[in-house]
Amino acid sequence: MITVIATVRAAPGRGPDLEADFRSYAEFVKANEPGTLMYTLSRSKSDPELYYALETYADEAAVQTHMANFQNRTGGAEGVAAGPPEILVLDRVV
Amino acid sequence: MITVIATVRAAPGRGPDLEADFRSYAEFVKANEPGTLMYTLSRSKSDPELYYALETYADEAAVQTHMANFQNRTGGAEGVAAGPPEILVLDRVV
Repeated sequence: MITVIATVRAAPGRGPDLEADFRSYAEFVKANEPGTLMYTLSRSKSDPELYYALETYADEAAVQTHMANFQNRTGGAEGVAAGPPEILVLDRVV
Repeated sequence: MITVIATVRAAPGRGPDLEADFRSYAEFVKANEPGTLMYTLSRSKSDPELYYALETYADEAAVQTHMANFQNRTGGAEGVAAGPPEILVLDRVV
């Protein structure tokens, strides 16, 4: 399995909008990506506009499917993030 | 729910031992901590002695229970980490 940690900062004051947008997209992921095994969002307690998406994929193909869907996404909220996410790609070992 | 990301570097050459130790402790957690909902370990693809424990807790009390158990732990492997973990504490929002 593959773990992805995507760190993203909300644009100032847009944290609630970023959360709502993620929640909406997570419904799409759940319905359409059987290889995306976990797709969650957490918010820093010490820096509440800083978010971490924790994601688990069955394999590399599932990651590619998710990335392609995300790039082709329409209707997402604009301007909720301060910039692009920082992406860590990890091998799940336990 | 509360998410914890604990980042830890293995001591040089001790990555496999760190993984085995985590796997063993995860069995204890599964058997004894109903409030620890997820307890996983992932390894960086780009920096393979760098590990991320991704953990989910039901609530703050579950975090405290886990921390107390961890501090009282006996029999864990010695010297598998290069130093103490960096701990991020997050509120799970999605």
